[in-house]
Amino acid sequence: MICEETKLFPIEALREFCTRVFLHFGCPREDAEQAADVLACADLRGIDSHGIARLRSYFELLRDGRINPKPKVEIVRSTLSTATVDGDNGLGLVVGAKANVIAMDLAEKAGTGWVSVRNTNHFGIAGYYVLKALERDLLGWAMTNSTKLVAPLWGAERMLGTNPIAIGFPGKKEPPIVVDMATSAVAYGKVEMARRKCNRIPSGWAINSDGLVTTKPEEMIEGGALLPLGSDREHGGHKGYCLAVMVDMLSCVLSGANWGPFAPPFALRQEIEVPTRSVGKGIGHFFGAMRIDGFIDPEDFKEQVDEYIRVFRATKPAPGTDGTMIPGDPERQAEMDRRQQGVPLLPAVIEELRNISSQTGIPFH
Amino acid sequence: MICEETKLFPIEALREFCTRVFLHFGCPREDAEQAADVLACADLRGIDSHGIARLRSYFELLRDGRINPKPKVEIVRSTLSTATVDGDNGLGLVVGAKANVIAMDLAEKAGTGWVSVRNTNHFGIAGYYVLKALERDLLGWAMTNSTKLVAPLWGAERMLGTNPIAIGFPGKKEPPIVVDMATSAVAYGKVEMARRKCNRIPSGWAINSDGLVTTKPEEMIEGGALLPLGSDREHGGHKGYCLAVMVDMLSCVLSGANWGPFAPPFALRQEIEVPTRSVGKGIGHFFGAMRIDGFIDPEDFKEQVDEYIRVFRATKPAPGTDGTMIPGDPERQAEMDRRQQGVPLLPAVIEELRNISSQTGIPFH
Repeated sequence: MICEETKLFPIEALREFCTRVFLHFGCPREDAEQAADVLACADLRGIDSHGIARLRSYFELLRDGRINPKPKVEIVRSTLSTATVDGDNGLGLVVGAKANVIAMDLAEKAGTGWVSVRNTNHFGIAGYYVLKALERDLLGWAMTNSTKLVAPLWGAERMLGTNPIAIGFPGKKEPPIVVDMATSAVAYGKVEMARRKCNRIPSGWAINSDGLVTTKPEEMIEGGALLPLGSDREHGGHKGYCLAVMVDMLSCVLSGANWGPFAPPFALRQEIEVPTRSVGKGIGHFFGAMRIDGFIDPEDFKEQVDEYIRVFRATKPAPGTDGTMIPGDPERQAEMDRRQQGVPLLPAVIEELRNISSQTGIPFH
Repeated sequence: MICEETKLFPIEALREFCTRVFLHFGCPREDAEQAADVLACADLRGIDSHGIARLRSYFELLRDGRINPKPKVEIVRSTLSTATVDGDNGLGLVVGAKANVIAMDLAEKAGTGWVSVRNTNHFGIAGYYVLKALERDLLGWAMTNSTKLVAPLWGAERMLGTNPIAIGFPGKKEPPIVVDMATSAVAYGKVEMARRKCNRIPSGWAINSDGLVTTKPEEMIEGGALLPLGSDREHGGHKGYCLAVMVDMLSCVLSGANWGPFAPPFALRQEIEVPTRSVGKGIGHFFGAMRIDGFIDPEDFKEQVDEYIRVFRATKPAPGTDGTMIPGDPERQAEMDRRQQGVPLLPAVIEELRNISSQTGIPFH
């Protein structure tokens, strides 16, 4: 959303700045460009919370030596269609991309490839990895756990990350269907935004530190928790909780990473306690890749996806709405706009980037 | 839920009756027992809508020659870790089980196995197939599309089935984590139940035929639609819609089955129009199986699952609730109760079974 207070920056300038910051900490050029590519993708697709706005967190973690700038990403176990990858505490933006390539390489030989990753860090938007699979004409899956923010249904404390799930399906003439969704009822960024604007939040988004539903954003932020997708028992809150557990199992328990409340915090200055206990290494991701021709003629598949998109676009619209969208539509629209107009950054983000600039000597305009 | 009006039946009596009904229509004994096993599993696990209460629908479809009692289930395409299966218009309860075995056999060789199925019919509870995978020490996945009942977000008509997702993870001393969830906000059966009791339904479950949110169950049933998990845009209704599309893609578009609004109706007497268009064969399922040792030492994995369960059970409980449960807990509890006490059937279901008994000569007590 572009509002008045933001300033527009060309994507290539942001990408270049990020690359140079990663290079500054000794990341190899290929890795620095890779990491910047994930952040740029988020900024282009309108997922502002996961783009260059997060550079400060990566900067601090690298500066304090808490992330390895030169990880040796290794396969520690594998079969024809599976692998477990140890990310050597590298940037998730780099480890994730390498593990995703391993999944795609497996798929090209075995029909599918499935990679669980441990000892890694936050990987940016899950949708990025799915788009990479689409470039190789594969169906891609991506999941990750993250710092605890979400209560399980009927729980009164943070136990799970927002644990996103992404998956993509290519069309022929139509653009691909790209699902990229957190398993919480709402993104943390929306609660932060409400606090900044002194607004209430809708019932169903969050609980306070006593485990009671709250409409005050500060009550969620100060010791409360987000609710899982579905919000309460009556509306299927147990289902959102189940999905978050599924992501945790595949990303962390299967790889040997820290699951549930033990995921290390993403940013050092996050006002959450650092877990006192470790049950694995780093956080965890899970990637999948599937060859379409392992199931059906790829041309037939893509034609059906096109038809699917047309049929769903033609759904009778609900009154007062724009009608049914296709998963991936909003992000695609944002990308078209932002490639032309630039990426809007908030003053607070610009200020952080200027700080990084003055600390590193890398110019930021 | 056991209420006064129900009568209790031992599970073995129900299983035997179902088996004999399937045999009556010429199903091979192995298939008849297989089909009855899926229904019995649903009845034991407390998912009454998917158990013997559905026998009447299977009975009618078989009687009218709309389901093939002797299907030749065939692999039509495969790679090391994938297969597409044509169910030859057999019972989903039989085709699903065979396709699930194919996925498990692939997994034992290639690390994982993924099977998309077309030309099949409703397969009962998705959780059944996951439990079968757990018996072989595999992680199991199951999905299926179904007759349209659910509107996409911002749509005003039925376009998607309740498209469930199931997945299971074994513990060592603790019971397995078993996720089995529809991607709609609520099950259709709950709306039917509210109508029968002349109750209102909560806002967020359904829309009427104009696409407006309704709390009158009859408005949903007579031309309205269920809402996807998340209900509205503010609470993540686009996410439930995305999940339903994902299931449709994997189960139907990948196999060549009828997707979205074109899924054939489950029961002939369902008050929905039969789709005028066909975009594939029958409905579709999707199965996955993963070898744990393709990723991690299975003993380590199961010990972590045990610890996961203990940590989540110890979540601080929200006031006025029983506290956090583990996915699969309610079904496991139902199974313990019902194995001892019997399966409660409603008078209407008993009446239907007596009717089948009188038409086939198979005794029902």
